Amino acid sequence: MRVLVIGGDGYCGWATALYLSNKGYDVAILDNLVRRHWDLQLGVDTLTPIAPIQQRLQRWKDLTGKTIDLFVGDINHYDFLIDALQKFQPDSIVHFGEQRSAPFSMIDREHAVLTQVNNVVGTLNILYAMREHFPECHLVKLGTMGEYGTPNIDIEEGYITIEHNGRKDTLPYPKQPGSFYHLSKVHDSHNIYFACKIWGLRATDLHQGVVYGVLTEETGMDEMLINRLDYDGVFGTALNRFCIQAAIEHPLTVYGKGGQTRGFLDIRDTVRCIELAIAHPAEAGQLRVFNQFTEMFGVRDLAMMVKQAATGMGLDVEIGQFDNPRVELEDHYFNAKNTKLLDLGLDPHYLSDSLIDSLLNFAIKYKHRVDKTQILPKVSWRREVGTK
Amino acid sequence: MRVLVIGGDGYCGWATALYLSNKGYDVAILDNLVRRHWDLQLGVDTLTPIAPIQQRLQRWKDLTGKTIDLFVGDINHYDFLIDALQKFQPDSIVHFGEQRSAPFSMIDREHAVLTQVNNVVGTLNILYAMREHFPECHLVKLGTMGEYGTPNIDIEEGYITIEHNGRKDTLPYPKQPGSFYHLSKVHDSHNIYFACKIWGLRATDLHQGVVYGVLTEETGMDEMLINRLDYDGVFGTALNRFCIQAAIEHPLTVYGKGGQTRGFLDIRDTVRCIELAIAHPAEAGQLRVFNQFTEMFGVRDLAMMVKQAATGMGLDVEIGQFDNPRVELEDHYFNAKNTKLLDLGLDPHYLSDSLIDSLLNFAIKYKHRVDKTQILPKVSWRREVGTK
Repeated sequence: MRVLVIGGDGYCGWATALYLSNKGYDVAILDNLVRRHWDLQLGVDTLTPIAPIQQRLQRWKDLTGKTIDLFVGDINHYDFLIDALQKFQPDSIVHFGEQRSAPFSMIDREHAVLTQVNNVVGTLNILYAMREHFPECHLVKLGTMGEYGTPNIDIEEGYITIEHNGRKDTLPYPKQPGSFYHLSKVHDSHNIYFACKIWGLRATDLHQGVVYGVLTEETGMDEMLINRLDYDGVFGTALNRFCIQAAIEHPLTVYGKGGQTRGFLDIRDTVRCIELAIAHPAEAGQLRVFNQFTEMFGVRDLAMMVKQAATGMGLDVEIGQFDNPRVELEDHYFNAKNTKLLDLGLDPHYLSDSLIDSLLNFAIKYKHRVDKTQILPKVSWRREVGTK
Repeated sequence: MRVLVIGGDGYCGWATALYLSNKGYDVAILDNLVRRHWDLQLGVDTLTPIAPIQQRLQRWKDLTGKTIDLFVGDINHYDFLIDALQKFQPDSIVHFGEQRSAPFSMIDREHAVLTQVNNVVGTLNILYAMREHFPECHLVKLGTMGEYGTPNIDIEEGYITIEHNGRKDTLPYPKQPGSFYHLSKVHDSHNIYFACKIWGLRATDLHQGVVYGVLTEETGMDEMLINRLDYDGVFGTALNRFCIQAAIEHPLTVYGKGGQTRGFLDIRDTVRCIELAIAHPAEAGQLRVFNQFTEMFGVRDLAMMVKQAATGMGLDVEIGQFDNPRVELEDHYFNAKNTKLLDLGLDPHYLSDSLIDSLLNFAIKYKHRVDKTQILPKVSWRREVGTK
């Protein structure tokens, strides 16, 4: 099976491309490399020294004998997208190729517009390309658990059956996303749902939780294959961020009360979930939604676990008190379903002390690369007073 | 009160601007006039000979002594938008300034992307402009009843209380829009909901039904103030379109079975609803949703009413059999609530034989302007076979 990984130079995309290649899939990466450009613009960098994509792929070939084709360009350029698809002829398109940071989207109007236009138009282009030339191709699209927000009822997988005034229907689950980035994913979901309905396309929307960890079997094979690991206030995510903060004995950046509960998963499960999705394609005309996480944690609880592990390693770590830069509930009900991927055979790597120890040791190895000025959040969700 | 009508050169916008000006509001129109440009590109035209906006406004001033300021430009250009807002200092912004045709958005990829980018970015720009400079301003945004689609349960006004697994929450009503245009309105609704929540803005989203009629007290005052009336397959809407077809004895274009049920309202109620919304602003932090229609009709039933009225006037009119160019249910449950505007004092103009007669006579007056080649739908929702 031929799988095109759009955004294959990124954190999840790179791990996925190598995993699928190792498993015997014919893999190509399409990426415009703009994430590296945004890092430069913001003055941030991954903790890990990542090689240029061309060198990464050459090393992969040298080590394994497997070739991963590379298409460098932007899916917002429709002609480029069509050309790449015609050359590669994918059976599945795995679409990670979006601006994926909530704080980035909240920097200012320009970044909000960039995020929504980039993400929405890129996905529209893929849908039209599939309609025109690859109607049987299966789109595996990365969404986010953040599309749901934090409703006071159980979160189902994409759809909910509602009884109302004596009648019943199964409808798209109501969405309450918490940033212009999360909104862009909601817009995508609605567009994909419609395209599947009217054109008979097949798609799976993976509403992914917060991914942690860095090593997979493949990215750990060689220093040149190392994955990116973000710790800065814009691209860094909970748990990964906490471990790197612990490694340099920086107070852990819990925002507000820390009662924010989210779905989490190990990056080794991300790559496995993608494989499960492409190995079991959606039906024609169907947008299938899987909630892609394995466990739910409160952010403060995670910080406590990291602090405990770090203390055990002799590090002096405190949990900081930080005003929440986001507008979100800090103490709320959260109970999300995640049975569909388990039913397909996912065998989760649950969060363990040994994973946290491993991640801490990894962070310690590269801690000389940390820029301490990039750790605290600089982007606020709120309207600044007195800007008139 | 100072009201900026964005899209004030269009069908609903023009009627609204004059109505509010007549009522004593200080009104300005902001419009990029691109709708007239799209008409030229598609080779279509309004049935009625509409004057250039500058001449319309001069005649309005000559007749009434009232000045309506004009800002010609595009809200997608943020600097222009800010400049216009700073000059006019609105208390309310009425936003009609979007691409509003479902078939237009379904022509091809370029028109889908144009529609979504134009509509979403324009509204994002307004939200950022309000956040930065006019946080107390009230946004009255035109949405559409088409955001809801045709669920098998009652349609509430924007939000629905859901009981699920023993818990309860009130959430945004699930949306199942039926075109890339309708999707753009859903995207807008989600963006506005979020902006109100995090920035404390105040907004009203008017989920409007299909508008019919052409004359309002103001647009009927003078030939130079005449409103546009679309009958072509791209911009023409049910009822208005049927009356014009009847005037030239063209078969009425009911698509498919004609059991499609929608909410409808007279354009004289559109302008009144806008006034009610701006006279009773939303609370800070609130996105309020009103379903803006007065009656529900099946499309075939409407065609029957037009045929009957036309026959009574001696016209020979048949109801045509046309394949449905859209993908939509043609026989479905539809029961939507619309009490909020009634509670604010809306006194509806219900559809009557005299209104249909009046609209038929109006169409007959201008029937020499009809281009018969523009009546049938040319845009299909479906994937064309064999394009690979």
